[in-house]
Amino acid sequence: MISSMRPIFDKTRNLSQEDIDVVLTSTNANEKYLASIVSELAGISPRIAHSVESLCNSGTNCIVSAFAYISSGLADVALVTGAERTDSPGLVLSWDKSRGKYKHPIFWSSLFASSHMRKFGTTLEDLAYVSAKNHRNGLENPYSFFDRSYSVGEVMRSKTLTDNVRLLDCSMPCNGAASILLASEDAIRQFTDSPVWIAGIGQKSISAGFTKNADLSSMESTVLASRDAYSMARKSPKDIDVAEVHDAFSICEIMALEDLQLAERGKGSSLVRELHDTNCKKVNPRGGLIGTGHPLGATGVAQTIEGFYQLQGTAGGRQVESAKTALIHNMSAAATSSTVLILQA
Amino acid sequence: MISSMRPIFDKTRNLSQEDIDVVLTSTNANEKYLASIVSELAGISPRIAHSVESLCNSGTNCIVSAFAYISSGLADVALVTGAERTDSPGLVLSWDKSRGKYKHPIFWSSLFASSHMRKFGTTLEDLAYVSAKNHRNGLENPYSFFDRSYSVGEVMRSKTLTDNVRLLDCSMPCNGAASILLASEDAIRQFTDSPVWIAGIGQKSISAGFTKNADLSSMESTVLASRDAYSMARKSPKDIDVAEVHDAFSICEIMALEDLQLAERGKGSSLVRELHDTNCKKVNPRGGLIGTGHPLGATGVAQTIEGFYQLQGTAGGRQVESAKTALIHNMSAAATSSTVLILQA
Repeated sequence: MISSMRPIFDKTRNLSQEDIDVVLTSTNANEKYLASIVSELAGISPRIAHSVESLCNSGTNCIVSAFAYISSGLADVALVTGAERTDSPGLVLSWDKSRGKYKHPIFWSSLFASSHMRKFGTTLEDLAYVSAKNHRNGLENPYSFFDRSYSVGEVMRSKTLTDNVRLLDCSMPCNGAASILLASEDAIRQFTDSPVWIAGIGQKSISAGFTKNADLSSMESTVLASRDAYSMARKSPKDIDVAEVHDAFSICEIMALEDLQLAERGKGSSLVRELHDTNCKKVNPRGGLIGTGHPLGATGVAQTIEGFYQLQGTAGGRQVESAKTALIHNMSAAATSSTVLILQA
Repeated sequence: MISSMRPIFDKTRNLSQEDIDVVLTSTNANEKYLASIVSELAGISPRIAHSVESLCNSGTNCIVSAFAYISSGLADVALVTGAERTDSPGLVLSWDKSRGKYKHPIFWSSLFASSHMRKFGTTLEDLAYVSAKNHRNGLENPYSFFDRSYSVGEVMRSKTLTDNVRLLDCSMPCNGAASILLASEDAIRQFTDSPVWIAGIGQKSISAGFTKNADLSSMESTVLASRDAYSMARKSPKDIDVAEVHDAFSICEIMALEDLQLAERGKGSSLVRELHDTNCKKVNPRGGLIGTGHPLGATGVAQTIEGFYQLQGTAGGRQVESAKTALIHNMSAAATSSTVLILQA
């Protein structure tokens, strides 16, 4: 899946390795010194090179770090590369000893689902709509891991893992890599007339263990991160034309839509059904994590790349018409931390 | 060893957990999500939290990253924590398959030593002076791993590992942690009248494998990083009152002194002998890596903390008198990447 590095630089000259100041790698892999290895393999001798890890939102942490290097004046052009293997050591929440055999993420997602169901009457069929929609969207994404979609009925009948998590409600860990270039305003003007801007950034880490979440029907870190991102971008939820949200499990998309204020509280499921029934690609056009696969460290980078495609009008069969503002939502470990980016054409 | 977190904030109020925006962890450990775990254990809910890895200069990469977050305006106060275990997976250069059984760092340091010896007539006794000096300096450091020093003769007679690396020419991997707080100019003024400033930053990654180094008697990444750091700080080598240099092996200190222009090319050994004979603490006052131990991810943080102690005049028995400008040199993997920081009182 995923991967960019397509030549968006088509103005006076192409960007070359010598222009790249920073190489950051986003991964949960145990291998060390990957940023320097990627640099050597790509013929780059950057000033700044290191790996960034924060489980499933490593990718957007890496992008925000590159943004900080550039906006602080320490660098002009940064390459961010996310990469992960299907057997990533970031898949299971090994740090939380208190969970015993319930360390696998399906268990927190199951608690999220039961909490949301109890509070808002969300149903298993609502969850199935998320998966069916995203799998169908993924068909238009040439980098998707899957070559087929699944109907609501097929999701409903897929293997039961817990009372309210079925196999097709889960994103699938997979191999994957994604790379994106960030540049300062001065640098980017040399290469293109139509850059995409990072207009808003919000991040929040509330804890390392999700039991700190007072209310399991909402993701507090996402609420707080989105507030900062909207504020920095001077945008409100109604300005968002297209959103990539972190559907690690079906319930996460429904909760994220509410937490990002893209749907009213308790109305996330209705919005998903509407998007599904009208084949509207506004949410997770590339297929989300469920429809394309979830290579942990690469996911946040791939989500952000989709925002760039959408705002540049190059998203092909999954293009949202006249998209001017995109939102990227990437989170880790039972939403104990979240990143929200707002991109602008 | 190491560790700070001492209360340097003594002005109108103490800094509290709520003030901390960013928590970055520096480590080569395979454990994931450590920045969020440290945050939860310390009662901090930061906006930005992730781990940074670049082998032995992870610590200064982390500090520069925190600097970038602050100077970009994304954050005001950052906690940087480096931590490592004695059995760190970062100890052996596992990525370089071409080295076969010669992956252990003693082999590159041996090539550095033989190259420097051939070119400049450096002797095994010169190397022993580095170790003896740094072990003696370490006695004044309450965080040192060692409780004794070694004479030049003892270093000379220590176990031979290669033709020109003896056991006491090596820094020793050990458990260790070190933490430092960085704050914006506005924020720091609330807490102290005598802050220490990061005035210059230089970083360079030339490759991931040291065979790209054309001349093994000099560390190109250190030369290039120091040039940027001096330039950003508007300082020259003669302004440096005290330096922490990355003596992973004895030969590294001699080469670093030359590459940082603190000694003329080929005169690094003479400077070391002079410092040893006059008991001058100007280079590696805390004992360096050889005299205190080398907990990889914590080392760059500990080196930087020593710079702060020296510039605040709180370095006790190892204080360099009237130190106003400090240089920190931290490198990785056969000096394939280096960081140089210049600190100012």
